[in-house]
Amino acid sequence: MTSDPSLSPLQQQAKDWFTRLRDDICTAFEQLEDELASGPHADLPAGRFVRKPWQRNANLQPPQWNEKLPPAQQVAQAGPFKDGGGGEVSLMHGRVFEKVGVNISTVHGVFAPELRARIPGAAADGRFWASGISLVAHLRSPKVPAVHMNTRMLMTSESWFGGGADLTPMLPNEQDTQDFHAALKAACDESDPAYYPRFKEWCDNYFFLPHRAEPRGVGGIFFDQLNTGDVEKDFAFTRRVGQAFLDIYPQLVRRHMQESWTAEEREIQLVKRGRYVEFNLLYDRGTMFGLKTGGNVDGILMSMPPEVKWP
Amino acid sequence: MTSDPSLSPLQQQAKDWFTRLRDDICTAFEQLEDELASGPHADLPAGRFVRKPWQRNANLQPPQWNEKLPPAQQVAQAGPFKDGGGGEVSLMHGRVFEKVGVNISTVHGVFAPELRARIPGAAADGRFWASGISLVAHLRSPKVPAVHMNTRMLMTSESWFGGGADLTPMLPNEQDTQDFHAALKAACDESDPAYYPRFKEWCDNYFFLPHRAEPRGVGGIFFDQLNTGDVEKDFAFTRRVGQAFLDIYPQLVRRHMQESWTAEEREIQLVKRGRYVEFNLLYDRGTMFGLKTGGNVDGILMSMPPEVKWP
Repeated sequence: MTSDPSLSPLQQQAKDWFTRLRDDICTAFEQLEDELASGPHADLPAGRFVRKPWQRNANLQPPQWNEKLPPAQQVAQAGPFKDGGGGEVSLMHGRVFEKVGVNISTVHGVFAPELRARIPGAAADGRFWASGISLVAHLRSPKVPAVHMNTRMLMTSESWFGGGADLTPMLPNEQDTQDFHAALKAACDESDPAYYPRFKEWCDNYFFLPHRAEPRGVGGIFFDQLNTGDVEKDFAFTRRVGQAFLDIYPQLVRRHMQESWTAEEREIQLVKRGRYVEFNLLYDRGTMFGLKTGGNVDGILMSMPPEVKWP
Repeated sequence: MTSDPSLSPLQQQAKDWFTRLRDDICTAFEQLEDELASGPHADLPAGRFVRKPWQRNANLQPPQWNEKLPPAQQVAQAGPFKDGGGGEVSLMHGRVFEKVGVNISTVHGVFAPELRARIPGAAADGRFWASGISLVAHLRSPKVPAVHMNTRMLMTSESWFGGGADLTPMLPNEQDTQDFHAALKAACDESDPAYYPRFKEWCDNYFFLPHRAEPRGVGGIFFDQLNTGDVEKDFAFTRRVGQAFLDIYPQLVRRHMQESWTAEEREIQLVKRGRYVEFNLLYDRGTMFGLKTGGNVDGILMSMPPEVKWP
């Protein structure tokens, strides 16, 4: 993990944490690939992540930050800057994970004028810095739920954290849903007992397909623009969410991955994945935001399932 | 074809034309299903369309129109009305056509306030009536191009026609592209020599994926808000577009449908279809408009390919 002199200590810590979380998740997922011993794909080789760096704009220097100042003054003093930064997509096509992508990125730029009014601290000055991790996993087995997780730090003339994790079972499983929510609730409660009910509801409202009047999955938590005034507390909460995900999701995979499944169950999975595509392309703000701000298309659309049906 | 006393003669003629075009297209496509004699799916039974009516709101009466008045006064005199109308989806899963949907609809309603400013004649009075046909065909063979066609009549306090047809080959084929464009050009030229270059460019601009800097296919024509002041001429042009599609597209299918293909070509097709999904859900105004105005979800999303891959 190299230190970037243009970042303040907090920015560097956030960036380092997202990178370390990425490493830990990849290790845990490769471990699951190694453990598979039965089921329709046990004779395939265990999958391994392939990493591919990408640059938002190779020619632009990052802004210089002054840690001693609050975000507004850091941005004010950073001087003019244009779009830049980059990240790394880790992609695995394995025997447990049909397709899983983990993207880390640290980017900076200037929000388009039409976006600024809706973004905290960007109305008068559209410059931003952002660092984060996002992950989407589509499993071979319809018995194992698909999952999405992301956490990020944003900075304009204000700074905040956002993220969450949510589960999309292909076949209903009450125990999985309960355990996933319990892990996220524990992470929330450690920071603030008010968080879980609020962020669970936010998640339910967000991951909903109005045209079908259907939730995308069984939810989880979702939070954005978290800025309590105590940045250490907010960062600690963000880390807890990532840690909770890393603790619980591999347990759910391990619970079901050795089971077999029917052709009908696979068909249900492929159709359910269509709802995932519809949500991400019609409604997901991250997808829209990324595509409209010149993000890395492969990184943004790595969330697309590997195989889908609309019958 | 039953006559609806609430429609003016022109509205009735438009509705009847869309219905007849639907019938002719379905007959032509079923004929292709019968003709298939070789290739990987020749042993499957010939496909047949299944029709399913849908109602936008069964409880609401259509407005009463007075043919003798111009559209603005017809709408003004029609009295208050809410969303209503309906249509019919014809869907076929065949051995040539992996999935083809043809939707006809005649609906009326009130545009949401945020949409009105951008719609001709709707700023002061959001009520509308619309009738049209739309078609999307995804073929089993990657040698046969996918296709989209739609034509429609719209009425607010103004009235106009819109529509077009465009081709999406899975594998490049210059002859198919030339023949498809030539047929549409001939239809355009019969109405106005200025139409083809204008509507071809409109199509190229519209069916474009900015996030990939890629066209969706090889284009065709696209027109909207066509209101020359001569409604008979505009309607005649709209009919010619439908007729040109009906003449040329089955020729292209017939040209290639008996050929075989490789697994690699099928894979290219499934990935290419992903671009189709991305375009329709991220950018297509018809899809967005339909989903946001409470349209029939199955009819709107019948454009989704039956099977897709994002590798």
